[in-house]
Amino acid sequence: MIGIGIAGYGYWGPNLARAVADTGAARVEMVADMSEAARGRAALRHPSARLTGDLLEMIQDPKVDAVMIATPVHTHYELAMAALRAGKHVLVEKPLTDCPVKAARLVEEAARRGLTLMVDHTFIYTGAVQTISDLVGRGELGDIYYYDSTRVNLGLFQSDVNVIWDLAVHDFAIMDHLIPSRPVAISASAASFVSNSPENMAHLTVYYECGAMAHLNVNWLAPVKIRQTLIGGSRKMVIYDDMQTSEKVKIYDRGASRKPGTYEHLVSYRLGDMYAPALSSKEALLGMAQEFLRCIETGAVPLTDGRNGQRVVEMLAAASRSTEMRGHPVDLVGLKVAS
Amino acid sequence: MIGIGIAGYGYWGPNLARAVADTGAARVEMVADMSEAARGRAALRHPSARLTGDLLEMIQDPKVDAVMIATPVHTHYELAMAALRAGKHVLVEKPLTDCPVKAARLVEEAARRGLTLMVDHTFIYTGAVQTISDLVGRGELGDIYYYDSTRVNLGLFQSDVNVIWDLAVHDFAIMDHLIPSRPVAISASAASFVSNSPENMAHLTVYYECGAMAHLNVNWLAPVKIRQTLIGGSRKMVIYDDMQTSEKVKIYDRGASRKPGTYEHLVSYRLGDMYAPALSSKEALLGMAQEFLRCIETGAVPLTDGRNGQRVVEMLAAASRSTEMRGHPVDLVGLKVAS
Amino acid sequence: MIGIGIAGYGYWGPNLARAVADTGAARVEMVADMSEAARGRAALRHPSARLTGDLLEMIQDPKVDAVMIATPVHTHYELAMAALRAGKHVLVEKPLTDCPVKAARLVEEAARRGLTLMVDHTFIYTGAVQTISDLVGRGELGDIYYYDSTRVNLGLFQSDVNVIWDLAVHDFAIMDHLIPSRPVAISASAASFVSNSPENMAHLTVYYECGAMAHLNVNWLAPVKIRQTLIGGSRKMVIYDDMQTSEKVKIYDRGASRKPGTYEHLVSYRLGDMYAPALSSKEALLGMAQEFLRCIETGAVPLTDGRNGQRVVEMLAAASRSTEMRGHPVDLVGLKVAS
Amino acid sequence: MIGIGIAGYGYWGPNLARAVADTGAARVEMVADMSEAARGRAALRHPSARLTGDLLEMIQDPKVDAVMIATPVHTHYELAMAALRAGKHVLVEKPLTDCPVKAARLVEEAARRGLTLMVDHTFIYTGAVQTISDLVGRGELGDIYYYDSTRVNLGLFQSDVNVIWDLAVHDFAIMDHLIPSRPVAISASAASFVSNSPENMAHLTVYYECGAMAHLNVNWLAPVKIRQTLIGGSRKMVIYDDMQTSEKVKIYDRGASRKPGTYEHLVSYRLGDMYAPALSSKEALLGMAQEFLRCIETGAVPLTDGRNGQRVVEMLAAASRSTEMRGHPVDLVGLKVAS
Repeated sequence: MIGIGIAGYGYWGPNLARAVADTGAARVEMVADMSEAARGRAALRHPSARLTGDLLEMIQDPKVDAVMIATPVHTHYELAMAALRAGKHVLVEKPLTDCPVKAARLVEEAARRGLTLMVDHTFIYTGAVQTISDLVGRGELGDIYYYDSTRVNLGLFQSDVNVIWDLAVHDFAIMDHLIPSRPVAISASAASFVSNSPENMAHLTVYYECGAMAHLNVNWLAPVKIRQTLIGGSRKMVIYDDMQTSEKVKIYDRGASRKPGTYEHLVSYRLGDMYAPALSSKEALLGMAQEFLRCIETGAVPLTDGRNGQRVVEMLAAASRSTEMRGHPVDLVGLKVAS
Repeated sequence: MIGIGIAGYGYWGPNLARAVADTGAARVEMVADMSEAARGRAALRHPSARLTGDLLEMIQDPKVDAVMIATPVHTHYELAMAALRAGKHVLVEKPLTDCPVKAARLVEEAARRGLTLMVDHTFIYTGAVQTISDLVGRGELGDIYYYDSTRVNLGLFQSDVNVIWDLAVHDFAIMDHLIPSRPVAISASAASFVSNSPENMAHLTVYYECGAMAHLNVNWLAPVKIRQTLIGGSRKMVIYDDMQTSEKVKIYDRGASRKPGTYEHLVSYRLGDMYAPALSSKEALLGMAQEFLRCIETGAVPLTDGRNGQRVVEMLAAASRSTEMRGHPVDLVGLKVAS
Repeated sequence: MIGIGIAGYGYWGPNLARAVADTGAARVEMVADMSEAARGRAALRHPSARLTGDLLEMIQDPKVDAVMIATPVHTHYELAMAALRAGKHVLVEKPLTDCPVKAARLVEEAARRGLTLMVDHTFIYTGAVQTISDLVGRGELGDIYYYDSTRVNLGLFQSDVNVIWDLAVHDFAIMDHLIPSRPVAISASAASFVSNSPENMAHLTVYYECGAMAHLNVNWLAPVKIRQTLIGGSRKMVIYDDMQTSEKVKIYDRGASRKPGTYEHLVSYRLGDMYAPALSSKEALLGMAQEFLRCIETGAVPLTDGRNGQRVVEMLAAASRSTEMRGHPVDLVGLKVAS
Repeated sequence: MIGIGIAGYGYWGPNLARAVADTGAARVEMVADMSEAARGRAALRHPSARLTGDLLEMIQDPKVDAVMIATPVHTHYELAMAALRAGKHVLVEKPLTDCPVKAARLVEEAARRGLTLMVDHTFIYTGAVQTISDLVGRGELGDIYYYDSTRVNLGLFQSDVNVIWDLAVHDFAIMDHLIPSRPVAISASAASFVSNSPENMAHLTVYYECGAMAHLNVNWLAPVKIRQTLIGGSRKMVIYDDMQTSEKVKIYDRGASRKPGTYEHLVSYRLGDMYAPALSSKEALLGMAQEFLRCIETGAVPLTDGRNGQRVVEMLAAASRSTEMRGHPVDLVGLKVAS
């Protein structure tokens, strides 16, 4: 059985530990958190796990084969690098790091050592995103024209990252997974309406090499929770509404095209059926944990590997730079295309 | 009774003519349209109106006191200027003109001649916008933080204007009416996904002097029709959903603020009641027509006067310039504040 | 061209007259209404039609080939019988009559004279009901288990009929069209919450020979308007929500069945896809008028013929009797099966 | 600390045990379940609790002060009576018993011994029902005209009870809590569409002494989950939609009344504002457990005491009898009014 060390048992760490236990294929060997209260909660739920307040000690422990990192973002790089250097496989909570250079170094280190480096972009493992991904892969949507997401709610305000690093990161991960083209530039604007707090509202536009556009509306200060994404393709269009209890993904056989040789009615419309496929109800976090274990055992490249995490961090960094210039577009020339 | 001349009896002209008749205070004296078929339709519905294919002839007619212009946008300026010079009051379909300089000239001409110049920004006369306007005026929302609008649907693609001039114009008119601060810059991006057609999707960010931000998402190529606006204020927040048959305007007593002196929980939330006021069911177009007649008779300044129309055109032009630069922000330094 | 006489130009008559004109295949020859104001409105919209305050005079007029009756329910029988005896084809606003015996007499009279007798059950001509009817006809739903409808709103209170005769009539017509089995009994309860007014709320259960059940919830005193029908079949289930602007009809590949030979988990569930077919956008009233004209010309039996109207009136009468006995079921033994 | 014995650790027992632990004011002393697997699950979550396969043994244990019964319905009476006779306070999962006589005996036994007898009607402890209860208590709704509930979904089919005893029980408990008048008769119809299974669809009408009517639509074989209740009052109306993530309770200032002395327009309408109060987010089950402990300690009468449970069982039994007679109404003459 693979021995897992959990680094950070605050908000997300308990979920990771529980998912590990649910796989039945790995064991929560150790839990490390500087907070005694956190360690106390871990003891109740994982009585056989060893506890420590020293994260680096856990990372060195020979019984720990792989480390899952769920600490504040600014600590991801140091802990992940230490774990890789100690020969451990590493899963990092999103975003992978707080800067692209650090992300690149982690990717290189993992590659050199032949270790699995994975980022917990949980949404990629949901039935909804998997279904949309299949649609795109089969060509059912045709060329992707746009990805347009609204991801707003009231709170929770973060103190160490702004709303882009907290919410847009989900869309960047989904976009990296779904859109076959390469993002070439980002224009973003942001504002903070609570004093001495990070930006809590932002709008981001991503330009793709193929002409597609993505747009994200993220906000911690909205009256209600909205999680709605429209995806327009040349053949079909999708509405993905994560707040629906059923029918989260609707696929519309609708579109418009120019009639050749016409003058009066330039554009013709297609208004066909809609269907909402039954989605897998498997828990996304469990699927993510299973993917991590599978890749450790087989050496396969994870669906959300380090390079995926790196590309997402590069987009986050570019978006941040654009916000400082009121939407002036920032190029993403070096960004590699998702395979 | 005020004699009205209708210039253009295509898509919108019949609605204007019908609204004039419904006021009971004015008469459709003439209808001018170059299309014989259009004149035929006008004859059936307004049998006592005179018909002509020559728009300038109608504009000169002594029985016509005021002209309503519902022709293609690029003809607005010429027809409106001719009408003002002939001493007629003028109402122009939105947008007022296709360029800010022309709008300014119309405003000046009307002012010099003491004539009423008004633009048909119909949304301003809806019960929904009037209710929100009252809320803002009473200070119930507090400071306005943001205005965030999604205005998307499938079609109708226009051939002479793009989606910004067709759909964003509604939001610019509402924003000019609601937001007391001055817009200082616009960043916009747009794309066309139908060959040889104007841009059919755009995202626009408007920066206000007070720090408020507005964001518009307009799209002719969406699978479903969405008309939803979120307005965030320091005291309350609003959702205005025009697709609802009831409860179009919801007001939330919700927000967030920084707790002074705290470290652990930086931000506190307010999660109070929501209420949806009963809205006036009076038809907006009728109210607009009555406002035009009232101002002709009293010399009052219309709610949507020429200056309002001019400011909206300036925003449209700035947005268009920004789209040509992939979201590079365009300043609106000269724009006057709505009174 | 078939000459049509409109009997009653109050609420519904103008719609019938307009639909006749829209067919292009018939002419509004006369309009009869005792109210001078109503005749004035008719004159404006149908300037070539002759007007009279004497309904029986119009019915006798040789230029009138067919009569459309949109007068209060209690007058339907007398006017329709007079028209049939004068050799005219007859369309009657729903419900056909206020009593089953009268309905039967009209059916017999029309049959003996070879005239078309039709009832304006408009819903049967909507794209939504036609689509569901096709599904049932193709066997896609399997055996129909239940039809469960909620049809509530605030007002309009009628003074001459109660909510069953005003709203449940729509469902009875749809059920007669969709459900191949024979209704055998009805249990209904009703209440009035406004003094000196007819019952404004009722719940009705209809038992079918095949074991299917229908249930209707009709109410004039509900806070919002709901028009939602669930139809359960052995193979698929339908939600028909008439308040939706799109996706009025959703078809679910869902169900439950008993696993043979199991003890622990008795019932297995099927949770498949949903789809929402694109519906015909043709106006239902126009389709109804065309059906009337087609049957007059060809002698065909209308989709909503007199027998259909008669069966609906028999159900209405049985439901009324049951409400007087607090839901005691009333047999419908004589009711013929819809062909 | 009060020692609690959990009888039955299948579907609901674990929730009760967890709620007991969450109160911090009682201890899960013992868990009894005949299934070894169930006891294994209990051991993991409540390591300090003693386990037994003999329910009567646990009931006799001196360390057990109170018993929570979450076994199949037909065993409730025997176990609860044994516990009362052993001097234990008792909480029973809904419904209290499978027959009114047994419920009455439990109530008498508890009263004679001065023990707390309570039924777990969890909905009564939700923020939504508490808010509506406050509205009714303050008279804000006026006289209650109707209670109209739709409670449908796909599965879970029960094998020992039908849909009335599984789902309508929730509404009966809420109605007993909310409606001050006395129910006098019930008319109900039911059907089973899965062979050899209990009835999975039912419609119930409850007649109240004051003239109010309640209607319930319960169904295990619906394509989607609906939990919607309309409550009509003389002053205001309520929509309670439990599937909404926010705004579960909406209160409408709407209604209709007869205009005295009018002829033309008989009924006038009131179309005022709607508001949705912020609801308590406290977990209902925790509140229920705290109420049980409070009443054990103070001798107070629980909000959902045995008499409340008894009245609900009497309604369930009357509804069942009516279904056997196709909706023939069954009198509830002996039913006591909720205090």
